[in-house]
Formats: sequence, C-alpha cells, structure tokens
Amino acid sequence: MSEETKRRIIEAGAELIHRQGFNNTGLKDILRAADVPKGSFYFYFDNKEAFGIKIVDYYSEIFRENHRDMLRDGSRSPLERFRAFFDTSHKYFESHGFTRGCPIGNLAQEMGDLSEPFRAKLNEAMNGLTSAFMYILNEAQKAEEIPATLNIRETAIFIVAAYHGAIMRMKVTKTAEPLELCYKTIFDNLLK
Amino acid sequence: MSEETKRRIIEAGAELIHRQGFNNTGLKDILRAADVPKGSFYFYFDNKEAFGIKIVDYYSEIFRENHRDMLRDGSRSPLERFRAFFDTSHKYFESHGFTRGCPIGNLAQEMGDLSEPFRAKLNEAMNGLTSAFMYILNEAQKAEEIPATLNIRETAIFIVAAYHGAIMRMKVTKTAEPLELCYKTIFDNLLK
Repeated sequence: MSEETKRRIIEAGAELIHRQGFNNTGLKDILRAADVPKGSFYFYFDNKEAFGIKIVDYYSEIFRENHRDMLRDGSRSPLERFRAFFDTSHKYFESHGFTRGCPIGNLAQEMGDLSEPFRAKLNEAMNGLTSAFMYILNEAQKAEEIPATLNIRETAIFIVAAYHGAIMRMKVTKTAEPLELCYKTIFDNLLK
Repeated sequence: MSEETKRRIIEAGAELIHRQGFNNTGLKDILRAADVPKGSFYFYFDNKEAFGIKIVDYYSEIFRENHRDMLRDGSRSPLERFRAFFDTSHKYFESHGFTRGCPIGNLAQEMGDLSEPFRAKLNEAMNGLTSAFMYILNEAQKAEEIPATLNIRETAIFIVAAYHGAIMRMKVTKTAEPLELCYKTIFDNLLK
C-alpha cells in the first residue's frame, strides 16, 4: 500500500470515468486499468461515491494548474490570455475527435441529483472555474479591453454556462462548430 | 401486448431516466415502475439502447408540442414568446427544486460518446430546439425587436448552449441563479 498505488487508481479511474461516465464504469474496470487488486481499493476509498469525489478533486487540481497561465502570464493582455484558455481547450477536444467533454461538466450532469456530497464538491469545482473567469475579466476591465458596464460575476457565470453547453453540444455534433460559435459570440458580441 | 403497454414502458422509463440517468437505471426498475413483466420489454424493444433512443423520440415529441405555443401564438410579439418559453422552463425546474435538468441534455452528456445511433438521435433533438429558436429569432428580427445584424443561426446555436449549460450548473448549485443570469444576459445583452 502506498500513495503511488492510490494515485494510480485515481488516474486510471479519472481517465475511464471521463471517457465513459461514472455509473457506466465499474470498479472492476478501474482496478484492471490500474492493475491493482480489489482490496487495495477499499484500503484507500470507503466506496465508489467517495472515490468519485476524489476524482473531482483530482481534476480540479489539474485545472487550477492550467488556469495559472491564464491568470498570471504577464506577456499577454488579459483578453488575449482569456482567448488562449479557450484555444487550449479547443485543441484538446479537437485532438480527441470532439469526444469526452469536460470531466466536471459530465459529472455535474450525471451526479448533481444523485449524491449530496458529490454535488457539493462539483459546485466547488464549478465555482473554481467561475473565479478564474472573474479574475481575468476583472483584469480585462481594468485594462479597458471589455466594457466598463459589464457585471463581472454575472458575465463569468454566463460564460461558464455557455462554454459547458457548447462542450455538451459538441458531444452530439462531433464537430468544432458549437465551440467555435461559443468563442465567437463571447468575444465578438458579449464582451464588445 | 398492446400499444398501451409499450407506451407505459416508455413513460415509466422516460421518468426514471430523466431523474437518475440512463446507465444508472436498470431495466428491472423500469419494468417494476411500468408494472409489466420482462418479456413485454423485449417484445417491444430490441435492447436497452434501442429503448433509450425511443425515449429521445418521446421527449422530442413533447418538446415539439411545447414549442408550438412559442412559435405560433399570435397574441404576443416574437420576443415576448421567446421570453415565455424560458419562463415556462424555469417554472418546471423551480417546481422540482432545480433537479432533473433537461432529459435531452442529460442524455447528450451521458450517451453522446457511447452509442452512435443514440448520438445521431440526440443530435436531431438538439437541432429541433435550435430550429425553434431560429424561427422565433427570425420573427423577432422581422419585427425589429432584435438587432438586424445578428446572425440568426449562430445566435440560436449559442443560446441553446448557454441554456443547456445554465441548466447543468443549476443541478450543482440547486438555485435559480444560473438560469436567471442566463435569461438576463440573453435578453439584456446578447439580443440588445
């Protein structure tokens, strides 16, 4: 038993659940992918729900790292960094044939009604993305790149929704169009 | 065996799947809720996937009916009818404590990558909502209620995404706020 084993179970589970959903992924599949015996799982996690909540933490941590570039890169303007965030996300989805979607969005949709601790953790994760958007929009407003009249918090919450909805639509069109129209409308209309 | 039995299975399944997800709902639960024996199911449906696709048809038909008011009611202006569409949807979610979400959106998220026939049917359903939005936005543009410069198709696709993303967020906040900010931004900013 080691932290490394625990990490291996989380990484294998995160990947499988991202690709095929939480309820559609059995513990057996996760343990096979991580190459660990069943006992290991229950040494580290109380049950599948508790494990799923750790998966949300795992992705939140990765996303926080990713957001750092957007938030801190001083070589580009706030609005350029905000655009770059969507570019990076777009390249990820394109490289996977517009499958998978957002692991947090997927779990929000699937688990938001089914487990209160899951819901609370997903709410935190969504608030994390909203805070990152609020920060960069606030910077963009200070730099006079977006209208002074925009309510930062409301706009950030709206953009989080539009972005997640576009990712969801992409999963059924299997094309770039929903994502492209999302960025286009945000940057050419909403933030103008 | 009768059309009435088939209908009962579809209605019971639609309700359960809407509340708790497709992969999280067993055939046994559906048959118990519909009060029919297992043999009945396989008389009407090849398998659970084929059944799920019928559930998308079932909801698409209900939604087409609902959209008719929005599309045809001559007593109100197009933009008033578009607002009323979101009001009706809002009341539904409020009456269910901001649970459930959109049955089509839920399935898009959950099944878009897992089954090609499911994906194709969900894509059709999403296109149906988009067409309804395009129709009403076009009417609103003819009535000069929204800017003549707005691209109707692109705006409709964007609004479908923002609306579905707001519904998803509502499932984790369990509050009206994501929905309210969605309508507010659409009507006070995007369509102004």
